[in-house]
Amino acid sequence: MLLGIDPGTAVTGFGAVVVDGRRRAELLECGVIRTSPKASLVVRLLEIHEGVEELIARLSPAVVSIEGAFQGKNVRSAMTLGQARGAIIVAAARCGVQVAEYTPRAIKRAVTGTGSATKEQVAYMVRRHLRLRSDPKPSDAADGIAAALCHAYTGPVPEGAASSRMAC
Amino acid sequence: MLLGIDPGTAVTGFGAVVVDGRRRAELLECGVIRTSPKASLVVRLLEIHEGVEELIARLSPAVVSIEGAFQGKNVRSAMTLGQARGAIIVAAARCGVQVAEYTPRAIKRAVTGTGSATKEQVAYMVRRHLRLRSDPKPSDAADGIAAALCHAYTGPVPEGAASSRMAC
Repeated sequence: MLLGIDPGTAVTGFGAVVVDGRRRAELLECGVIRTSPKASLVVRLLEIHEGVEELIARLSPAVVSIEGAFQGKNVRSAMTLGQARGAIIVAAARCGVQVAEYTPRAIKRAVTGTGSATKEQVAYMVRRHLRLRSDPKPSDAADGIAAALCHAYTGPVPEGAASSRMAC
Repeated sequence: MLLGIDPGTAVTGFGAVVVDGRRRAELLECGVIRTSPKASLVVRLLEIHEGVEELIARLSPAVVSIEGAFQGKNVRSAMTLGQARGAIIVAAARCGVQVAEYTPRAIKRAVTGTGSATKEQVAYMVRRHLRLRSDPKPSDAADGIAAALCHAYTGPVPEGAASSRMAC
C-alpha cells in the first residue's frame, strides 16, 4: 500500500492506494489533514505530523510518496512548505517507512501525461485512473492521491498489494 | 533553562543557557548536531530531529528558541532550511516544550546591538556575554547560543533558573 501526501500548512491532502504487480491501482482511502486556522505555526506543524503518524499507524504503508520541491518564487512560501514537509518526513522516518519524493511536474506528468496540467486535469485523471464515480472529495485529496499514483506508475515495480512493513 | 538552536541540514548549532531573574545568562552546554554527509535527506532530517529530542529529554529546557525566517533569495535553500526547522519544531512540540522564533536580524541585534553583525561579531559577543575564555567551539554552536541569548534578553522575564517543564 502506498500513501501519497501533498503537504501544506493549512491543508495536507492524502490518498492511500493499493497497487498490484501490473501497476494497477485501487483507492483505499483519501482525505485531508486540516490544521487549526488560528493556531500557531508550532501547533499546526504538530497537527500535520500527528495526522500523518496516525495514518501510518493505521494503514501501514510500504512507502510514503510526497510532493517535493517548490515551483514558486516566494522564499517565505518555500520556507513554510519546507516546514510542513519536514514535519511529514519526520513522521514517516520515525516509523521506519520509506519516503519517495517527486516534483509537482513529475506527479502531473505521471498522472496526466503533461507536467503543466491544471489542478482540474489532475483531479479528472485521478478519477479515471481509479475508476471513481466522481472527483475525489475534498478536492485537495486528489493531489495526495496523485503523489501515490506517481510512485505506483514510475517507482520500482511493487512486489504485491500487501505491505512489507511492520506497523509503527 | 533555554535551548537555542540554529537549524541547518548539514550542521545544527545549539546552546543551553541558564538565565536568572535579572536576565544574566550562564552557559550550560553547547555543540552541534552534524548529519551524515552522504545520507539521504530523510535520514538527515531524522538525525536532526532525534538529536534535538535527545537534548530536550536530557536538559528539560523551558523554551526552545529557534532561528526563524530566511534572509537569502534562493527558493531551494529556503525549502531545505524549512525542512530542518520542521524537524526541530516537531521535536519540541512532541515534548510539549514552548517554541520561540526569532529572525536572524533580531538575534544579531539582541547579542551585538546591530542586525547586520558578522558571524565573527556574534561569536565574539556570545563569548563576552557568557564570560567565556575563548570563542564557543565548534563555531556553529555560537549561533545556537545566540538564539538562546536573544530569548533571554528580549523574551518574557524568566521566573527563575529552574525549568518549569516536566522531562519529555
